[in-house]
Amino acid sequence: MGGACTLLIFKMRNLQSRVMSLKFQIKNEWGSELGVARRAALELAHGVVQTPVFMPVGTAATVKTVPQETLETLGASGVGAGIILANTYHLYLRPGHELIQRLGGIHKFMSWRRAMLTDSGGFQVFSLSKLRKVTPDGVEFRSHLDGSKHFFSPEHSMEVQIALGADVMMAFDECTEHPATRERVKASMELTHAWARRSRDYWLAHREEVPWFGEFGSSSERRTQALFGIVQGGMYADLRRESAERLVELDLPGYAIGGLSVGEPRELTREMIAATLEHLPKEKPRYVMGVGYPEEIVEYAAMGVDMMDCVLPTRAARHGLLFTSAGRVNIKNKKYAEDDGPIDAECGCQVCARYSRAYLRHLFAAGESLAGTLASMHNLALYLDTMQSARDAIERGTISEFATGYRARAKEAAEDQEEKLQ
Amino acid sequence: MGGACTLLIFKMRNLQSRVMSLKFQIKNEWGSELGVARRAALELAHGVVQTPVFMPVGTAATVKTVPQETLETLGASGVGAGIILANTYHLYLRPGHELIQRLGGIHKFMSWRRAMLTDSGGFQVFSLSKLRKVTPDGVEFRSHLDGSKHFFSPEHSMEVQIALGADVMMAFDECTEHPATRERVKASMELTHAWARRSRDYWLAHREEVPWFGEFGSSSERRTQALFGIVQGGMYADLRRESAERLVELDLPGYAIGGLSVGEPRELTREMIAATLEHLPKEKPRYVMGVGYPEEIVEYAAMGVDMMDCVLPTRAARHGLLFTSAGRVNIKNKKYAEDDGPIDAECGCQVCARYSRAYLRHLFAAGESLAGTLASMHNLALYLDTMQSARDAIERGTISEFATGYRARAKEAAEDQEEKLQ
Repeated sequence: MGGACTLLIFKMRNLQSRVMSLKFQIKNEWGSELGVARRAALELAHGVVQTPVFMPVGTAATVKTVPQETLETLGASGVGAGIILANTYHLYLRPGHELIQRLGGIHKFMSWRRAMLTDSGGFQVFSLSKLRKVTPDGVEFRSHLDGSKHFFSPEHSMEVQIALGADVMMAFDECTEHPATRERVKASMELTHAWARRSRDYWLAHREEVPWFGEFGSSSERRTQALFGIVQGGMYADLRRESAERLVELDLPGYAIGGLSVGEPRELTREMIAATLEHLPKEKPRYVMGVGYPEEIVEYAAMGVDMMDCVLPTRAARHGLLFTSAGRVNIKNKKYAEDDGPIDAECGCQVCARYSRAYLRHLFAAGESLAGTLASMHNLALYLDTMQSARDAIERGTISEFATGYRARAKEAAEDQEEKLQ
Repeated sequence: MGGACTLLIFKMRNLQSRVMSLKFQIKNEWGSELGVARRAALELAHGVVQTPVFMPVGTAATVKTVPQETLETLGASGVGAGIILANTYHLYLRPGHELIQRLGGIHKFMSWRRAMLTDSGGFQVFSLSKLRKVTPDGVEFRSHLDGSKHFFSPEHSMEVQIALGADVMMAFDECTEHPATRERVKASMELTHAWARRSRDYWLAHREEVPWFGEFGSSSERRTQALFGIVQGGMYADLRRESAERLVELDLPGYAIGGLSVGEPRELTREMIAATLEHLPKEKPRYVMGVGYPEEIVEYAAMGVDMMDCVLPTRAARHGLLFTSAGRVNIKNKKYAEDDGPIDAECGCQVCARYSRAYLRHLFAAGESLAGTLASMHNLALYLDTMQSARDAIERGTISEFATGYRARAKEAAEDQEEKLQ
């Protein structure tokens, strides 16, 4: 038995020595009262991502309303998004992970050549599907599309994510609801830890099955997918610490902080992020899932977060809510009907360079699909440019002032808008 | 009275000598059994349009789902659309022509720097609005949006179109329904002629009121809008001739053939176009409204038509119907689910260069808005590229073969598809 075990360990090490999932090279660090911000290059199979980074969400293998060639050129600098997300739950249900696998993986399927990340499907199983039944083995659920019955286990989530073939995949976790008792949070966290270990084991054993295995890297060191663990622990700082420490034992390529933005006050989100960050390894990427407003992603970057994602810029855009350097703009408002200025005079994006508020408002009023496209382009560009400014500020050692100023300006703009509404 | 009349004529001539609405320079003509095809340059205030040309339809100041910067680069050559349409009826109702006028006209409003054409609103009043009441003075109708009551006369249509400020505007006409008795068609045609004269008179008296007047041309010859008359006459060749001759007396800058594609067989459409073309002045642009399938626009170009427009490429695209060199593709069909080839292997458009049929089908299946955008881009590119090929064929003297070959290939593809369906 001892011999078999040794052999297994040897095989796993052997696998690990032949494949490489990511490189994370920190160029600058800047400590302030907010934390230690890091300016780094995250090297993945499909490209190098400059961090801190905001990742647009492409739920069903499309960042809603925006063509891939546009995503590649968004923002003042024209460099576009370096990494985008896709949702495992949605793609598993439609068109199916096996179809995407047969077509060479998600990158080929949607013609996105840069880096990608897939979530585990866990969050959507808990938020979208019906009649869930959680057991230690996994989750049985019904599709929100047709009511059909499905089962996700950590192993199955890994299988699906390997078939999709994003550069980064996420361990299968239970996203604890909020509010929840300490007892409930602890039990849920234990489940997440057990599932993280099973996710890791499946990943280590099967990572050479990714559709593009062998296409990237050298012959002696092939690129494969990276697996990130997800810290849970609800709104309990000590459980967050415990969760982080337990996951770090698994020695995963990166770590995410999950279970936030679930209805808690923003101050508590910040607190939980801070409480978790200090227990995550400094040399590995740290990803906060599902955040946030522009001033928040800047603040989290200043605290030492490397990666963030959120549907907010695109979902808000489709509803006519635009983010600007002077606060939020509800472009459907009648007061913009004859406003021939750009969405944001300080924005360098291609939408602000060309279209007026009056035109955007007209497109929304007329129910034209171009409304959502142009609004999404602007909001995404603003997010990407904001993170570019945050990266520049870390390099210059001014990230603390940048984050504080950004938040103050957002607050002032919000107050100013409230005043106008009165 | 005689003196006042002379003065009016003098003033009109004086106006005409100071402003110029268009230049139409024929470079090549090529006669065949189909007619005399013309390769020309149509110089308008906002640019030179190479004809024969297909004009994408931008109903509510947007070619549905496609951003303007994309329209400017569509097609294999990357030159995009030289001229697009907007609908007077829609823009009059929402956001209102006066708003667009205050914002500097339709070009500035929608940020389209190239040439534009507006229809008269007549066709939509007859096809979309409710409770129409036609009198010699004009048409009373109720908005399809909110049921509000409106009145369009030739003068009012001109007023609205001058406020919008497209490069070409259309005389207000009655689009005769099909089928219709000879008596009904004749009466309708007479109304159209009377309205054309009133449209012309209003245009001549007010054309310096276009929002961009003075911005184009030299100080001695300023550019203004052009007015095209619309030939009616139903499916009666002799009435078509009479209508053409009567409108030619008005000496307008260009002429359109209206009242087609209203349910008649395609062969009759072709016959009516031929019967009208021979009575229109050779030195002026000729525009067939609301046509057609790719093989039809090629054939009409070969017959001597210079301009065409149709919602077909964009409307079909939004329903998943794609035009290709090998016939129509209903991309929603399950057989494309794993087809990793482009929509059309012979197409040089940016969609075919990047995306697969499988991905397009997935986007349609998932109800993603990008589906309509990519499909519209492809269909429009195919139409624009088809007209580029037609222009090249006229220059080379091979337009007759090109049109015949195009039609034969379309017919063969259609038969092939029918066979597959069986």
